[in-house]
Amino acid sequence: MHYPRAFRDLIHHFSSLPSVGPKMAERLVLHLFRQDTEKLTGFAESLEALTRLSLCQHCFHIAENSLCDICKDAKRDQKTVAVVEEPMDVIAIERTGRYEGQYHVLGGVMETGNGVGDSLRIPELLRRIGEDGVTEIILALNPTTEGDLTALYLRKKLAGFEGLRVSRLARGLAQGGDIEYADEFTLASALTNREHLN
Amino acid sequence: MHYPRAFRDLIHHFSSLPSVGPKMAERLVLHLFRQDTEKLTGFAESLEALTRLSLCQHCFHIAENSLCDICKDAKRDQKTVAVVEEPMDVIAIERTGRYEGQYHVLGGVMETGNGVGDSLRIPELLRRIGEDGVTEIILALNPTTEGDLTALYLRKKLAGFEGLRVSRLARGLAQGGDIEYADEFTLASALTNREHLN
Repeated sequence: MHYPRAFRDLIHHFSSLPSVGPKMAERLVLHLFRQDTEKLTGFAESLEALTRLSLCQHCFHIAENSLCDICKDAKRDQKTVAVVEEPMDVIAIERTGRYEGQYHVLGGVMETGNGVGDSLRIPELLRRIGEDGVTEIILALNPTTEGDLTALYLRKKLAGFEGLRVSRLARGLAQGGDIEYADEFTLASALTNREHLN
Repeated sequence: MHYPRAFRDLIHHFSSLPSVGPKMAERLVLHLFRQDTEKLTGFAESLEALTRLSLCQHCFHIAENSLCDICKDAKRDQKTVAVVEEPMDVIAIERTGRYEGQYHVLGGVMETGNGVGDSLRIPELLRRIGEDGVTEIILALNPTTEGDLTALYLRKKLAGFEGLRVSRLARGLAQGGDIEYADEFTLASALTNREHLN
């Protein structure tokens, strides 16, 4: 291959990442090779630091210690829990600045035909509802077949908790979107859930 | 942002890479976060090792020491030099297994309107031709406006060396390509340079 070993190793590491092909990996490594030592060392240190992070024992978001910043924040509403698939969904909802409750990261969704995997943190969610006195669960799962399937499964499980409100994120047109290009399911939801303005 | 600092830092490092947007960077870091410590440490070490690589003092390809593996290889033809833009081009030509000569990595091409940048290793190429007794230069620059401009400039510079053969890579149809979709310049080259079969 006529690249030095460190170069080849790094190309290998990059091409094992999702959506990075071998050609792009090569380009990335060449780009990095041209950076100064300080920048490269910083990158390497951040990667190393990632190994010291863990999952929040309460909500399974990414955390520096046993609890994440959100669970540690006493000002947040402990009784409202948004159930999401992945840590990225937590960040997306936090970015809106419109949510004051807590989260529960399932760690994925059910796969059609496979049922509930052991890896989904559903038992932990059910336990938490009782222990924390949760009064509302917002199912903030992706609007996909798998997301809907998981939401359906959770709704059945949650029906056993008396007085617990369960909601899911509204479906409708995306801000800046185009009615002409909206799919029929989204448009149907947007019609059904239309907001009355007077 | 509600990601721990190491996480945010790493997202920042990834999004500074070419063709990696902030969303993709986030996905990559989440993917890495799920990998085991050993894999992450290996990745970090490879990055760190990159800082110990340098450029070959002879041809400017990437090297572990002062000379790259190709320049150190006494079996290769020292009199034939392929002039390329980037180290990736060296690798691409090596992959063909059909080239036994050496290389000279220019480190870029001339930019239209900007003339020859100081960063292009053209003086080093000219010096090398004399010192090494080079007899053939193959201009293996990209078939772009900038590549052609640089090739033209180099041809003029190389005209001063008596007995030096100068060639450039052939242009024509790509293997597996489609005549219908070939651009007119490529097709014109393919016609002009047609290979006679009998």
